[in-house]
Amino acid sequence: MSRTAALVPAAGRGERLGPGAPKALRPLGGSPLLVHAVRALSLARGVDVVVIAAPEAEVDSVRTLLSGVVDDAELIVVSGGETRQSSVARSLFALPEDVDVVLVHDAARPLVPVEMVERVAAAVRSGHEAVIPVLAMVDTIKAVDADGRVVATPDRSILRAVQTPQGFQRTVLQQAHAEAEIDDVTDDAGLVERRGVTVSTVPGHEEAFKITRPLDLVLAEAVLTRRRAGGVVA
Amino acid sequence: MSRTAALVPAAGRGERLGPGAPKALRPLGGSPLLVHAVRALSLARGVDVVVIAAPEAEVDSVRTLLSGVVDDAELIVVSGGETRQSSVARSLFALPEDVDVVLVHDAARPLVPVEMVERVAAAVRSGHEAVIPVLAMVDTIKAVDADGRVVATPDRSILRAVQTPQGFQRTVLQQAHAEAEIDDVTDDAGLVERRGVTVSTVPGHEEAFKITRPLDLVLAEAVLTRRRAGGVVA
Repeated sequence: MSRTAALVPAAGRGERLGPGAPKALRPLGGSPLLVHAVRALSLARGVDVVVIAAPEAEVDSVRTLLSGVVDDAELIVVSGGETRQSSVARSLFALPEDVDVVLVHDAARPLVPVEMVERVAAAVRSGHEAVIPVLAMVDTIKAVDADGRVVATPDRSILRAVQTPQGFQRTVLQQAHAEAEIDDVTDDAGLVERRGVTVSTVPGHEEAFKITRPLDLVLAEAVLTRRRAGGVVA
Repeated sequence: MSRTAALVPAAGRGERLGPGAPKALRPLGGSPLLVHAVRALSLARGVDVVVIAAPEAEVDSVRTLLSGVVDDAELIVVSGGETRQSSVARSLFALPEDVDVVLVHDAARPLVPVEMVERVAAAVRSGHEAVIPVLAMVDTIKAVDADGRVVATPDRSILRAVQTPQGFQRTVLQQAHAEAEIDDVTDDAGLVERRGVTVSTVPGHEEAFKITRPLDLVLAEAVLTRRRAGGVVA
């Protein structure tokens, strides 16, 4: 038997949304971002285990918060570390032995569609070592120097914006974290990429956008309202 | 006397929003995108002339549509060309002689804040030959090969997403268009950049986002609702 786990590092504070509660606990449509994200992950076919890295003082309350959300997936809540990277590492340590595929998802992407989670997991199951969901770039991109002058216009057609969940063979991600030489990694795919692992891509989804600015919450509320009106589970 | 003109190429059809009317005429909060964009441009201090390149069959109706919108700016409506580039070129030909600063704005960015328009215009007036408004990248960026495999992770810290209006000394933009060797330019700053002109940057604004996908219209409606509730002119 082999199982798939989804990890959500949610111990950090999202400063760009202003002071207050950790970003993962900011409300959206009446529920914390984290609840939306975990619900989407646990609704995905083939996600058997959900592991949350919470702030140490909130492990119990997060467990209570999510116990009714994960449906028939197994819920594990661990105490997160100082950095996102250490939270992912602690979550990996807490994984049951029979887990061989790991997804890492950002709680700040609460509206990730369930089918996008399934797409990433399926690509890993089909043999890819590392899989990331991506979108084409909408805007023209420029590279600038330290004074803000344009120095180049990169070819946008080969650039992609990366979303989450990112998916990995468990051993690949575990080795990358065990041997990482820097300790502020925010991009797990980059970690395995630097080790020479091939990172594959699957189509992302516009509703899997990241909430970093207040305007993103406005959009998220609008999407949620639209989903609820349409009878979609959200 | 010297004046500033804002050009809006609006002759094309925005296919990513689906079939139907030209994208610039798609409604947002009861008014076409174009009306919102032109209102923001004409409200900016120092924008004296607004030039619209409209579909040939709609020159008159666009003139009627916008006549009450441009306030005390001069309105010029020309027949646009097959491409965005030819529409900009035709707009440049139609400019009054005393215009020496030109902004080029995308009608698909209807909610550009007035102060952002002013920021671009002021930077050109202060001596910069070409100025673009930019934002930092929110997502991690990857470069991919033809098979969708990741080949590199560009340094996101030097990358910027480009918005509009882009601003130019009139002579700089006019020469670039007169001597352009390709005919599908969608990035005027790129055109002058290739000629060795220094392109400077000023801060963009998250509400100046481009409407390309249906979800963007959802966000735009939400922003508009919020602005109206706050008493902000929109």
